[in-house]
Amino acid sequence: MALESETTTGYPLEPSPQQMRDMAEAAVQFLVQFIEDLPESPAADLEGFEEVVGRLREPPPETGGPFDPLLDLVADGAAKGFNTTGPGYLAYIPGGGLYAAAVADFLACGVNRYVNVWNAAPAYAQIEWSVLRWLFDQFSYPVEARGLLTSGGSMANFSAIVSARKALLPEDFLDGMLYASDQTHASVFKAAVLAGFPARSIRTVPTTPELRIDPDALRAMIGEDRAAGRRPFLLVANAGTTNTGAVDPIAELAAVARDEGLWLHVDGAYGGFFQLTERGREMFRGIERSDSITLDPHKGMFLPYGTGALLVRDGARLREAHHLGADYLQDLAAEEEIPNFADYSPELSRDFRGLRVWLPLKLYGFGAFRAALDEKLDLARFLDEGLRETRGFELPWPCEVTVVAFRYRPGTGDPEEFNRRLLDRINASKRVFLSSTMIGGRFVIRACIVSHRTHRDRIEEALDIIRQAARDLDR
Amino acid sequence: MALESETTTGYPLEPSPQQMRDMAEAAVQFLVQFIEDLPESPAADLEGFEEVVGRLREPPPETGGPFDPLLDLVADGAAKGFNTTGPGYLAYIPGGGLYAAAVADFLACGVNRYVNVWNAAPAYAQIEWSVLRWLFDQFSYPVEARGLLTSGGSMANFSAIVSARKALLPEDFLDGMLYASDQTHASVFKAAVLAGFPARSIRTVPTTPELRIDPDALRAMIGEDRAAGRRPFLLVANAGTTNTGAVDPIAELAAVARDEGLWLHVDGAYGGFFQLTERGREMFRGIERSDSITLDPHKGMFLPYGTGALLVRDGARLREAHHLGADYLQDLAAEEEIPNFADYSPELSRDFRGLRVWLPLKLYGFGAFRAALDEKLDLARFLDEGLRETRGFELPWPCEVTVVAFRYRPGTGDPEEFNRRLLDRINASKRVFLSSTMIGGRFVIRACIVSHRTHRDRIEEALDIIRQAARDLDR
Repeated sequence: MALESETTTGYPLEPSPQQMRDMAEAAVQFLVQFIEDLPESPAADLEGFEEVVGRLREPPPETGGPFDPLLDLVADGAAKGFNTTGPGYLAYIPGGGLYAAAVADFLACGVNRYVNVWNAAPAYAQIEWSVLRWLFDQFSYPVEARGLLTSGGSMANFSAIVSARKALLPEDFLDGMLYASDQTHASVFKAAVLAGFPARSIRTVPTTPELRIDPDALRAMIGEDRAAGRRPFLLVANAGTTNTGAVDPIAELAAVARDEGLWLHVDGAYGGFFQLTERGREMFRGIERSDSITLDPHKGMFLPYGTGALLVRDGARLREAHHLGADYLQDLAAEEEIPNFADYSPELSRDFRGLRVWLPLKLYGFGAFRAALDEKLDLARFLDEGLRETRGFELPWPCEVTVVAFRYRPGTGDPEEFNRRLLDRINASKRVFLSSTMIGGRFVIRACIVSHRTHRDRIEEALDIIRQAARDLDR
Repeated sequence: MALESETTTGYPLEPSPQQMRDMAEAAVQFLVQFIEDLPESPAADLEGFEEVVGRLREPPPETGGPFDPLLDLVADGAAKGFNTTGPGYLAYIPGGGLYAAAVADFLACGVNRYVNVWNAAPAYAQIEWSVLRWLFDQFSYPVEARGLLTSGGSMANFSAIVSARKALLPEDFLDGMLYASDQTHASVFKAAVLAGFPARSIRTVPTTPELRIDPDALRAMIGEDRAAGRRPFLLVANAGTTNTGAVDPIAELAAVARDEGLWLHVDGAYGGFFQLTERGREMFRGIERSDSITLDPHKGMFLPYGTGALLVRDGARLREAHHLGADYLQDLAAEEEIPNFADYSPELSRDFRGLRVWLPLKLYGFGAFRAALDEKLDLARFLDEGLRETRGFELPWPCEVTVVAFRYRPGTGDPEEFNRRLLDRINASKRVFLSSTMIGGRFVIRACIVSHRTHRDRIEEALDIIRQAARDLDR
């Protein structure tokens, strides 16, 4: 298939119907094969990536060329790197990449509607609004709640911080104080810095041995800061940390926030969607009393990268921070039908993110997502128990949500060095790909189970690989 | 085609290969027909949108359903609203929606690679890096330049402002001053507010009768502010305003910025890509001396909504504002190969935007985009001259870039009221869709010609429709 087909539109940027069908067919053929091959493809493979990268280094192309060689290059590029969408990817926070979401994006880009002001595309703005209301519903947020679909958790955390700043420190805010545990994701600190807070504004609250915020230490810190004339305004709780999946005691923190007049933001970028399960709702008890919640549908809903969400209990506060223009607050009731998302967001033009959330939810139902998330909880507990039962492995923290963080205590030699080599050896299997972190100054290996493609067979294999790698090294 | 096919994978979220092919085929069929029909479909149509919206209002779906009815709903939704991707859409700043970019997004979502840290997907990170270097090249930016693909111009303007803030006002910045003309896009002010600047930080510089920044007025303002102890740090120039396409005198402003030690940011979200043309390079003379440039590939490159870009001359400054962690600056040379974009951006996880820029550029070449942009310049001049030659029309501003802003002076009655009715009557044709603005307190109609699907036939028709509507009303 070439683009030099006889049926052209006369305009070089607009392919003919036949060319459109041919391009899509070639793309689908590649993608279906790519997805079918995922169980057998390496969990990560960087060998020889320089060759593909080299083919991509070139001066600006003045003239074009046919589609097929470009598709080959896309395929070759996909083969080099972390296999983020495969079943063996357990590093960082895995995403997913539901095929239905890819179809949704194809449609969304093709029709190219503008959804950030509702009357430009009422049905599509309603699709985003429906998705948000379904999410409010999961967290028992009230009818005044408003929210956003963002590019990811970082931007959701950013909009939460500027909303809290606007609501509680409307003028000079440089002496405002944020509280978050030392396990909190870097994106929270980055968002605070981008919002203009100096580094001294950010207070790292000590954690309990389970790596959860210590509410007593928090209360003491807030007291000290007030005594020193600083202005506490924001408390960030984790619904599953990246390091170990630790869940802060949200109900207790909600009480502190209420007593101290702080905005309670829950970072559920990784863990928040486990709220769909009974176990998750138990872990996150009190989350319904938060002021805002960050979620990443591209994690807990297995979507492709590029879809985060922010839910704000009192929607007017989100709007006040992001709506430019008259100082008076437009009556939210007037918008009751469909919000103008641009008034709630840092963005004006942006992609139609709602379709890739809505289509999978309508195709499969919340029930299918609930079942898949329950499966991930089971898989993490299976791996956690398997390692705990294996001599030499240390798991100093409880398995919360779906992270399994562990170390191995070797018979001899430097344990730090050993664990680094252990991780390399595990990943050399190319069947699973894990990552590491530092906790209390020590190197820790972690497996995070989130992909919709990771099932029991792969986690059994992971357990075998980890045990075998430790045995091989520890002699 | 139903999803209850016999060939299932056993996992409800993972369709079988046949189901994947069926979904894509149905989506392509719809999209090809949708695009084929664009020349005849209404430029905007909101009649009866409530019915489609009503079908979308429902509680969270617990169970799923087949694809075809959902695709029908997507099709029905696309039909209601502004036809943003059609040839008659001349409102606000039209985008485009190149079909090749939709295919690119389908691929990008399907392979779901993480590109914000280069070694996770080296070839794909290189694709983004190649695209950025090609853009630097258009503006003669040096090898130290770095940049970002963003969700749109708003986020690009935001990152430019925080970069300037970090570079020039590293500590308390609340007395920093930004300068921009009264024609500057609201996203610049919004970005400043989100970055923590108080409203008093933003100085609106008067414009000449052509709606370009007046450099003398600017110098005077800066002098006053310095005398009052405030700290001027940022100057924003427009490479094509949204209202009338006005281009600020960039070369002169670069001289002011140099003399005064200000960061010069050029907002080229709408107009920047006209730099590809000879006329654009002439209009934007001096842009190569700016510190940063915002571009929207989803405008000037005809891509679907969701792709902006920020170019920063001294890449280290972009990184310093966005890189969290050690205070020391990591040697940029060590990254010479491929940048870790997460260190240059507010975002951590986000969509792989580069593919939808790269694929069309490789398929068609810069030459095809240059030709299409030149065509838009010609079309705008054709419409501008046509209206100027028609009795009763007033065009108080030069036609710069591709905006044609006009009013009609009726024989009798209130001209404001007349022009509002004139716009409604033009849009009632459903063949073209224009929008309005306020300039100097007066209602102004504007046509903005950017879509790759807008050609001479449609602009001739637009001219007839506008003239006829004025004749019909002015009796």
